[in-house]
Order: sequence, then structure tokens, then C-alpha cells
Amino acid sequence: MLPEKVREYLDSHREKHLEKLIELVRIPSIANDTSEPDRCMEAATWLAEHLKGLGLDVEILPTKGKPNVLASLEVSADAPTLLIYGHYDVQPADPLELWRTDPFDPQVRDGRLYARGANDDKGQLFTHLMAIEAWVKAGGGVPLNLKVFVEGEEEIGSPNLEEFVERYRERLSADFAVISDSAFFAKDVPSITYSLRGLSYFQVDVHGPSADIHSGLHGGGPTNPINALAKLIAAMHDERGRVAIPGFYDDVLELAPDERKAWDALPFDESQYAESIGLEELHGGERGLPVLERQWARPTLDCNGIVGGYTGKGAKTIIPSSASVKISMRLVPDQDPEKINDAFEKFVQDTTPSGVRVRTHRHAAARPVLLDTAGKPMRAGRNAVLEAFGKEPVMIRCGASVPVTELIQRLLGLDAVLMGFGLPDDNLHSPNEKFDLSQLYNGAVAAAAFMNNLGDKCLE
Amino acid sequence: MLPEKVREYLDSHREKHLEKLIELVRIPSIANDTSEPDRCMEAATWLAEHLKGLGLDVEILPTKGKPNVLASLEVSADAPTLLIYGHYDVQPADPLELWRTDPFDPQVRDGRLYARGANDDKGQLFTHLMAIEAWVKAGGGVPLNLKVFVEGEEEIGSPNLEEFVERYRERLSADFAVISDSAFFAKDVPSITYSLRGLSYFQVDVHGPSADIHSGLHGGGPTNPINALAKLIAAMHDERGRVAIPGFYDDVLELAPDERKAWDALPFDESQYAESIGLEELHGGERGLPVLERQWARPTLDCNGIVGGYTGKGAKTIIPSSASVKISMRLVPDQDPEKINDAFEKFVQDTTPSGVRVRTHRHAAARPVLLDTAGKPMRAGRNAVLEAFGKEPVMIRCGASVPVTELIQRLLGLDAVLMGFGLPDDNLHSPNEKFDLSQLYNGAVAAAAFMNNLGDKCLE
Repeated sequence: MLPEKVREYLDSHREKHLEKLIELVRIPSIANDTSEPDRCMEAATWLAEHLKGLGLDVEILPTKGKPNVLASLEVSADAPTLLIYGHYDVQPADPLELWRTDPFDPQVRDGRLYARGANDDKGQLFTHLMAIEAWVKAGGGVPLNLKVFVEGEEEIGSPNLEEFVERYRERLSADFAVISDSAFFAKDVPSITYSLRGLSYFQVDVHGPSADIHSGLHGGGPTNPINALAKLIAAMHDERGRVAIPGFYDDVLELAPDERKAWDALPFDESQYAESIGLEELHGGERGLPVLERQWARPTLDCNGIVGGYTGKGAKTIIPSSASVKISMRLVPDQDPEKINDAFEKFVQDTTPSGVRVRTHRHAAARPVLLDTAGKPMRAGRNAVLEAFGKEPVMIRCGASVPVTELIQRLLGLDAVLMGFGLPDDNLHSPNEKFDLSQLYNGAVAAAAFMNNLGDKCLE
Repeated sequence: MLPEKVREYLDSHREKHLEKLIELVRIPSIANDTSEPDRCMEAATWLAEHLKGLGLDVEILPTKGKPNVLASLEVSADAPTLLIYGHYDVQPADPLELWRTDPFDPQVRDGRLYARGANDDKGQLFTHLMAIEAWVKAGGGVPLNLKVFVEGEEEIGSPNLEEFVERYRERLSADFAVISDSAFFAKDVPSITYSLRGLSYFQVDVHGPSADIHSGLHGGGPTNPINALAKLIAAMHDERGRVAIPGFYDDVLELAPDERKAWDALPFDESQYAESIGLEELHGGERGLPVLERQWARPTLDCNGIVGGYTGKGAKTIIPSSASVKISMRLVPDQDPEKINDAFEKFVQDTTPSGVRVRTHRHAAARPVLLDTAGKPMRAGRNAVLEAFGKEPVMIRCGASVPVTELIQRLLGLDAVLMGFGLPDDNLHSPNEKFDLSQLYNGAVAAAAFMNNLGDKCLE
């Protein structure tokens, strides 16, 4: 059990902690924003100062892109070490007009903090920083050695992370790892995630005439780049909603029978979920499979953005010079992003209609991950969540990617505990992102209890 | 033959005429620009003043959209009347970065005037205004009664034109009509156009989730609006490049054998044309038909612009809330835009994948037109072009739409002479639009000769 004084410290510092979190969330640290001044460096610096204030040794380490923050606190050479991962970068905030309040002017309404990054991942990361502070200030010091690793490019697919983890493998080495960048299955249904999907992200550009040309004078001559791109995208799915890229499903691991059974027992109401995202029916993914299976255990292919030709008001009669699409594929164990990337590129070259030139650009890739659910760290995590939220957590998968999870597994030899505190209606990557303050405060309790449980010999 | 003094006046006033034309072209009168001040009204006012200066009675007449200019000059109650049509509105200028010089700061380079509207249609219209001036100032007055009608919404599909022509049918009534808004088949191949394609223009919006949502968390659940739109667009053509909308070809008039023969004799080099628009091969339109036939005598369907989701730099992993496309169909005799519009809307409703909502918006429509090639006005036009350019013109069709042509035919009972002076490389609707000054100056001679020929009894 978490010492009462640590819990009391967290309870009595809620307002102060919220104020500090708001400071961090106010910084628009969007990783794909290359304008000056670099707001990512500003967020990294804020974190470094904050961690120093908690007594950690801190360094801001550069990458080819945005910098990472690496901090450590050694309490004893004999104690085990916990690696805490989070990311300070956030998704772009557009479309701005759909935000009720400015995405970077955090506002508390109805017990929730609204802002870009309030949850993903500044808010969730902050639960661990609150826990460290409580242990340091009220608990007589943290109960095990700590390493805190905060990345700055998670939302753009962590393009420089693998190189970084390889390079700093020694400094990142630990006995346990925890990541809070996921969500409860539902409010009051505490959850721990044991599998994430991977990612392959492409931009595909189709080039036609050297300039936009008159659709009347020329229509019927050249291949139209938008029509060609639409043909290409349409060919990526068959009539059953399966991805039609040859070899795409070759390495897909079938669902275990006990997983299907466990998921059937979850409190999932398909029509309620559909309604929560403004829909009546859910026809994405493969026909005939349950929604949770489609989102958690099956790979998908989605267009994230498309643009070409005249997109202003009214009419303009042109055949455009080019058209572009961004496409992300979510991969499941044991699909290999490299193999999928090659298959995708070959498919694009083979399938694009004649008369246009096509180019593919690889943006980001992440391997899917399946984590150990039986060992000490998982038990420590389950007990911590139980202690903080009063309910045994359910074990779930997640359709999203947290690329670091697989790197920690492959390069550091650790199966991280994905102890996330978000809720399904938190509007991640969407306008009006929020984080329930009860999740923030109880999350900090869970983070503190997790440290306690891992330092606690009785669990071994 | 055109009186020598009229021709001399045109020759000696080239620089002054060019200066005046540049004044007009400088006004960015884009019809779908609704910002203030209204630059279309500015262009209309400029024209009204100019026409008044030539001695015409002028009025600027409002529509639901941009105003039209209507002017007249009666020389004799016994003389026939010629209606001259042009439009002062121009295409939007974007993409601006592809212009060598500012689209609304006209520049002369290598004997060509570069600017948006230098050709289409301010430059071409201006040939007639130069001709009127020459007759008035040097020829003892114009040889027949004139009506000049300048429209302000041609480039957005003339949405208010039919109502206008019906309303002012009396004031527009004439014995002959001429429109200079088309092009020579090639440089040194003077041409007169006897058929234009019609137009149906739609915007199609596909709506999915109520906001952009995380493509990892949700991918596999909802139908993706971009993927759905791509499926819909792809379904609009079959594998032979034919438009797959049921009934689309029902009313298409087959090409006459002598037309095919005449077109085969034209100096057309397919690979040279392809190269001129930056392509190696031309695979648009229906497989197996010659390019000219595909562009002149066959209907087509082209996407003019598409947009949805994240279109910024780098990666953003969302399933977008919506996606939109602008689609234009070019119609040929005897297709009826109303019938095609209905068929298109039904096809969209029937074909859009399930799980998204789709809405269609009709933008503009124009009927195709086939003109008399045997009567007096056509002979007057052919002789005028021969006199001005030194060669008998070839008779061609054109893939573009000039909606007024069909309205003049249907509502005023006149088959206009499409005596255009553009060249195929004029970059209409594209960056770096231009008008060769030799075409401008000789075009004015042709316009003056046309008036002479129509007033000349010997032609009857």
C-alpha cells in the first residue's frame, strides 16, 4: 500500500499541480512545426527545469529533429530501476475553428482540462512527475531508482527514436518501464493495455500536366491526377473492406480464443460508440468482424488527408497538375513495417493508372507490439491501478501506436507496462482534447503506487 | 474588303490600344471573388466608360451575381444588327507561385501580353472594341448596327445568364452574333469553331465522424470519408475510360463521317501536344478514340479539385471528418445538362460507400452547342479571317464551354460565329496566361472586316 503521507501530499497539492501542468500545456510544442522560435525546445526546457527541481539529474539531448529530455535519480545501487517514458510533443491543433476555446490556452470546465496536449501526452506524463514529487517531498525519497525519458517527436511517428534509443541504450537501461499514453476502456473501467498496433505512413503524389490546364479544352486528353489518385486509393481495399495490397495479411497473428472471449465480456455498446463520434453505423475495416477486433487486432489503411487542384469557393474548371494523399496503415503483430512499406510501394507503382507519374514518400514507421501480461511489472501495475481507482483493471489492446514501446522491448529488453489514464471521449488528435482531472489526480496516485509496488519485495 | 483607312487606323494605333487593354486586364475581376471592393464592378465600369467613349449607349445591368454591360449603337433603322458578346470576368489566378510575373500586372515579353485575362476574354473582346473605334474614328462610322454584351460570370459557369438573356431578350435581339472566346487550331492555322461542349459542375461532400479522430484508436471502426470519396470517384469511370453513370451516353450524337475526315487532315501531332502540357502520353477519356475526337465530340468527367483531412507538412494520423471534390462533366450534342445532373446525383447516392453521408451541390450547367456552318454570318466570318490572317480558316470544334452560345441560339434564335483569336499555348485557366500581340492586332482587323462583310450586300 502507498504510504498515507504520499497520498496526502498528492491530495493537498492538486491545485498547485494543475497550475504547473497548465504551464506546460500552454507551450504549443507541435513536432512538425519547424518555425522559429522552436516551441518544442521550450517544452523540453520547461520539463528539464521541472525535473531538476525534483532533484533529478537532467540533460536535453539533441536528435536530427526535436530534442529529448533524459533524467535520472539514483537512490541506491542495489535498488531496481524504473524507466518512465512520455512525450512532450503534441498533435497540430487544426481545424482551429472547431475548438470551443484556444487549444493552447488551457481551460478547466466541468472538472476537465481542455487543451491540445492536456491528455496526450503532457497530462498523462505529468501523473508520474506528480508521483515523484510526492515521494521526494513527503515519502522520504522515491522507493527505487528512476529514469525519465521524454520524447519530442511521438506525434510525427518518432522518426529519430530508434537511433536515439540505440545510441543511449546504456543510459536508458532499466529493470522496468512504464508508459502512460493510453486510455481506460471506459470511464470507471480501469484498464491496462498489452498490445499496440504499428504504423506505416506514406505520402503519395500523383503528377500530371506541368500546370493546371483548362478542363474543357483538354478534358479527354490527359489522365486527370485526381481521378487517377482516386482509382489508386479505391484499389487499396477490396469489396469486403480488406486491404488489397498483395501480401498485406501474410504475417497477421490470429486472435487467441481467450482474447475474443475477454473482449466479448467488455462493456462495449457499438451504437453508443458510433454515436460518440457522430455516426450511425460503423462500416470501416473488414466486413463481418466485431468492431473491437477490427480496431485492436486487425490492420487497417486510412487516408489522413488529400489535396489537389482548386479547393477554393465556387467553381474552377481545371485539370490539376497534381494531387497528393497521406495514408497511414495500422499494423498488428507480427506484421513488419519494412515489408509492408515495400509491398505498398510496389502496389502503388503497379496500380497507378497510366498517363501520370507517381511518387511515394515514407514518413514514419512503427512495429506493432504484444506485451507480457504475466510478470512482476504487470502485477505491480494492476495493483497500482486497483489501489488508485478502486477496481481491478481489465486487460485491453489499443489500436494506436506508441512506437517507443516496441523499441523498449526490442532494444532494451523490457516489456513496458502501458498504464494509461485517458478516457475514450478525450478527443485525442481532435479539437477540444481534454483530460478529466479525476483521471489526472488518481493517475498520480497509481503512478506513485506503481513505484511502491516495484520497490516492494513482497511482490516478487 | 476592309477600307484601307480603317486598316491604317488599326495599324497606327497598336500601342495606344495595347495600353488601354492593359488598363482593363490590370483589374482582377474574378467572378467567384466576393470580397470588397467588387473588382468585377470596376471592370464593368471601365468597359462602360470605354464604350461610351466610342459613342455607344451603355448601361450596367445588375444580376443576382456580377453585373453585365450592355451597349448599343444604331446607325440606321434599315441596317442589320450585330451582337458582340464577350466576358470581363477571369479565372482565379492561383497557383500564384507558378506565374513568372504577377497575374494582374500585365507584362509584354517576346511580342506577347502576359496576364490573367490577357486572352480570356478581355484580350479577345478587345479586338471588337478596337474595330469599332477604327470604324468610328477613321471609317465614317460602323457599317451596321451594333450591340455589345459583356458578361461578368462566364468563368463560374454563367449561373445568372439564362435569366438575364430571357429578361433582356428584346434589347439583345440582333441579326447576327459573334463571340471571340476561342482559339486557332494552331499558330498560322486560322480557325472558326462550330461546336462547343456543355458543362455540368458539381461539388460532392462526404461527411463522416463529427470531428477528425485518431486513425489508430478508431481505424477499422468508421468508414473513412476520403477512402469513401475515392471509391465513389473511381466508380465514375469504367476500365475503358468511359463514364460509368447509367444513361450518360444515351443522347450523345455520333460524329459525322466528313467531320472525322476533316479532323484527320488537321496538322495535329499527338506527342507534340502531350509535350506542350508536360506529358509523355495521353490516357484520359475513352480508350481507342483519337485525342481530338475525345476532346471535341465525346463527353468527359474530370475532378477539378479535392480536399479533406490534414494537408499540411509531414504526418498527422487522423480519420478526417469530411472530404470534398469538385467535378466537371463536359457534355456534347445532344446531351441535356439537366438529365445528366439528375443521373449524376442518383449515381452518387447509389454508389457512395455505406457509413458516410454524401451531399451534392450543383454549381453550373451549360448545354452543348452545334452551330450552322453554311449561312451568311459564317461566310462573313471565314472571309474576315482570310482577309486578316491571309489564310482560309479551318472549321473546328472546341472542348470548352461558352454558355452564352447556346443561349443566343435557343433564346435569340441566332447561330453565333465563334471567331476566336487565341492560340493553343495561351495557358488559359493556367499560370502565365498570354495573348500574342499579332493575334490581338490581326484579330481586330478580322473583327472590323467581319462588320464590313455583314454590312456588305454582295455577300447575301
